[in-house]
Amino acid sequence: MSTTTSQVTSDVKSAVVDTVSRAKEAARTLSRASTEQKNTALAAMAKYLHSQRPIILEANARDVKAAQTQGLSSALIDRLRLNEQRLSEMETSIEAVIALPDPVGAVLREWRRPNGLSIRKVRVPLGVIGIIYESRPNVTSECASLCVKSGNAVVLRGGSESFHSNQAIGAALKQALVAAKLPEAAVSTIPTADRAGVDVMLQLDQLIDVIIPRGGEALIRKIVETSRIPVIKHAKGVCHVYVDEAADAAMAETIVLNAKCQRPATCNAMETLLVHERMAPAFLPSVIRRLEAAKVEIRGDERTRALVPGLKAATEEDWVTEYLDLILSIRVVRSLEEAIEHIGRYGSAHSDAIVTKDEASAKRFVQEVDSAAVFVNASTRFTDGFQFGLGAEIGISTDRLHARGPMGLEELTTYKYVVYGTGQIRE
Amino acid sequence: MSTTTSQVTSDVKSAVVDTVSRAKEAARTLSRASTEQKNTALAAMAKYLHSQRPIILEANARDVKAAQTQGLSSALIDRLRLNEQRLSEMETSIEAVIALPDPVGAVLREWRRPNGLSIRKVRVPLGVIGIIYESRPNVTSECASLCVKSGNAVVLRGGSESFHSNQAIGAALKQALVAAKLPEAAVSTIPTADRAGVDVMLQLDQLIDVIIPRGGEALIRKIVETSRIPVIKHAKGVCHVYVDEAADAAMAETIVLNAKCQRPATCNAMETLLVHERMAPAFLPSVIRRLEAAKVEIRGDERTRALVPGLKAATEEDWVTEYLDLILSIRVVRSLEEAIEHIGRYGSAHSDAIVTKDEASAKRFVQEVDSAAVFVNASTRFTDGFQFGLGAEIGISTDRLHARGPMGLEELTTYKYVVYGTGQIRE
Repeated sequence: MSTTTSQVTSDVKSAVVDTVSRAKEAARTLSRASTEQKNTALAAMAKYLHSQRPIILEANARDVKAAQTQGLSSALIDRLRLNEQRLSEMETSIEAVIALPDPVGAVLREWRRPNGLSIRKVRVPLGVIGIIYESRPNVTSECASLCVKSGNAVVLRGGSESFHSNQAIGAALKQALVAAKLPEAAVSTIPTADRAGVDVMLQLDQLIDVIIPRGGEALIRKIVETSRIPVIKHAKGVCHVYVDEAADAAMAETIVLNAKCQRPATCNAMETLLVHERMAPAFLPSVIRRLEAAKVEIRGDERTRALVPGLKAATEEDWVTEYLDLILSIRVVRSLEEAIEHIGRYGSAHSDAIVTKDEASAKRFVQEVDSAAVFVNASTRFTDGFQFGLGAEIGISTDRLHARGPMGLEELTTYKYVVYGTGQIRE
Repeated sequence: MSTTTSQVTSDVKSAVVDTVSRAKEAARTLSRASTEQKNTALAAMAKYLHSQRPIILEANARDVKAAQTQGLSSALIDRLRLNEQRLSEMETSIEAVIALPDPVGAVLREWRRPNGLSIRKVRVPLGVIGIIYESRPNVTSECASLCVKSGNAVVLRGGSESFHSNQAIGAALKQALVAAKLPEAAVSTIPTADRAGVDVMLQLDQLIDVIIPRGGEALIRKIVETSRIPVIKHAKGVCHVYVDEAADAAMAETIVLNAKCQRPATCNAMETLLVHERMAPAFLPSVIRRLEAAKVEIRGDERTRALVPGLKAATEEDWVTEYLDLILSIRVVRSLEEAIEHIGRYGSAHSDAIVTKDEASAKRFVQEVDSAAVFVNASTRFTDGFQFGLGAEIGISTDRLHARGPMGLEELTTYKYVVYGTGQIRE
């Protein structure tokens, strides 16, 4: 994405503008589609993904081979690779969206004014949603199904390393839309792997209503700097668990191990453990032993290292780092207040937890920690659309505008006011 | 605002960064302030504005004199000028905010998961709100009072022509905050009239949570292009009234005159009148006579001019123009469908109305016209926070994300999830 707009060949530009314009046209039709029509399309999407497995796997094999030739990391290649099982999961996940309630048309509020005007606030689709993401090709069908169900057209721009996979998946989904008599451009993939295409896309604020980036910090920063379109960021999670002086030690240990180890590469995994100084001497040696047994590298502040000698020292840099890995920084704090202060200063306002039996401490923590999700006596790993019961998730917003935390179908909508009168005018 | 960042003197930069950093600090305190504390501050704000009238009027006189010397238009100077009456209105409008319910802390939804987790979605302030506006100095106190009530810190950057007025008003409001034991930086004015200050402000995405611009198209476009901070646009309204073939002619005439003439310089005033071809012959000559009597300049399409000879011709340009003045473009359409098509193509999705006695036509119009406010048998002029019963208005969003249409106190908030468990971990 280092290419500047001036260098963009007119071919790339016209291909992107053309694709996005057709998506905008399709959005109008999709916004009026009935729930039944949309569900029919979703069922067809699962069906076509199934029948086109050979084509998709072949396209994916090309991407994997190119990635190997380019020497990409094995972790990246693993995320890129599709197989029968992953394709089955993609189909199942589309079918699950059929069962979810259609958010469009819901009346959010309804009232009457003294002058007799009747006002309804009604849920409507956002319009055209642009998704810019890296690597995992299953994001293509996940995002497409959620956007279609919520009445939105979607323009998908995956990583260039998964270009052929995404094109093949996109082609299957388009055929499904046509079979369901909906415009195929409702699910559009950017038809070029040229990174300049992203720059073109980000200028089209008359055609795309929102950009949702899913990827690493560098990708997201670049998009925020470049985009004229509103962006809902899915950025990093530097999540904390604070073990209060009044914590149940066994519960704290279970939560700490789960928050760190159950799936360390996710944004809601714990990166820093804060422990009250009165709890630390009894708690830290045991929990660190268990964490180390689970292959977690510990980086401790001075007081942690005094309690458990031989640990690596945590630096200022550690407190702001999202490891996404089996690494944990630990700090001993003097008070609840110091824990809240630490989270406010170094955290990313994603997901933070307190373990305590003290109701007043819990209350103060949830009031003063300004994060998208604040937990009392539960693992930070629960910040997730499915775990919250939203039924689905297009991602986890780290922004404060429009949607915060897990974004389900409702978060892919906006509203309009419908006002019925009997000839009212303004005096 | 043509200065690029590289030209910004370090003085301007450090002054802006310093001001905004202090606002961010203050936001934390304000987010936790009780309703009573915030109302005490609002009462003090009205009181200090009152006691400091001489200082404010003197500062305003300096701005007016400079504007006259620079030869600014008399309309602009009129908007800039303060007097005892306008100051009284500013005080009254702050007092009105005291009576409004505090949106912060409201539980938006509350549910329990099968694993026993209890989840609450709770309303919290956005944080730091940046307002960039032109001319009218009363915006300073209006926005400040709404932000304080909703628990947000506000950074105000008015037009350079009203710099001294805004500084004087800001100083009075700060004294009021101090008197109410809240941090004075909760209401901050950018301490420099240098336009480079805006560019600096728009880069501070770690300190400001949202930018709300209020002003002309050029200002808003510039901000959208420059800002790394999410922007909620308050852009133009190209609003339509469509008079259906089944309209009550007398009602239609009343609504048309109100929508055009009651306050033509507002964004919710009608700019284009669409009339069904079966209605046009009986309706247009009479309504045009009344509009012309009200000094409205009419620009008609071919069929309008065939019915009422001597009118100026409407061009393609007219259909997309927000006149904000006593000018109206008129088009005769063949059908409801053509009216909806015209509004979709040329409109700005702000406020659009149909006048009809036919329920099916009304229903189709409100479904297919995708505007922030869609009216049946009422004037477009009702798109307004007060008229909608929101109690207040910081502006009218023309965006689709976060807030659409009139923005009241609730639209100045976001939410967080508060989750209580009993030791739950993710399997």
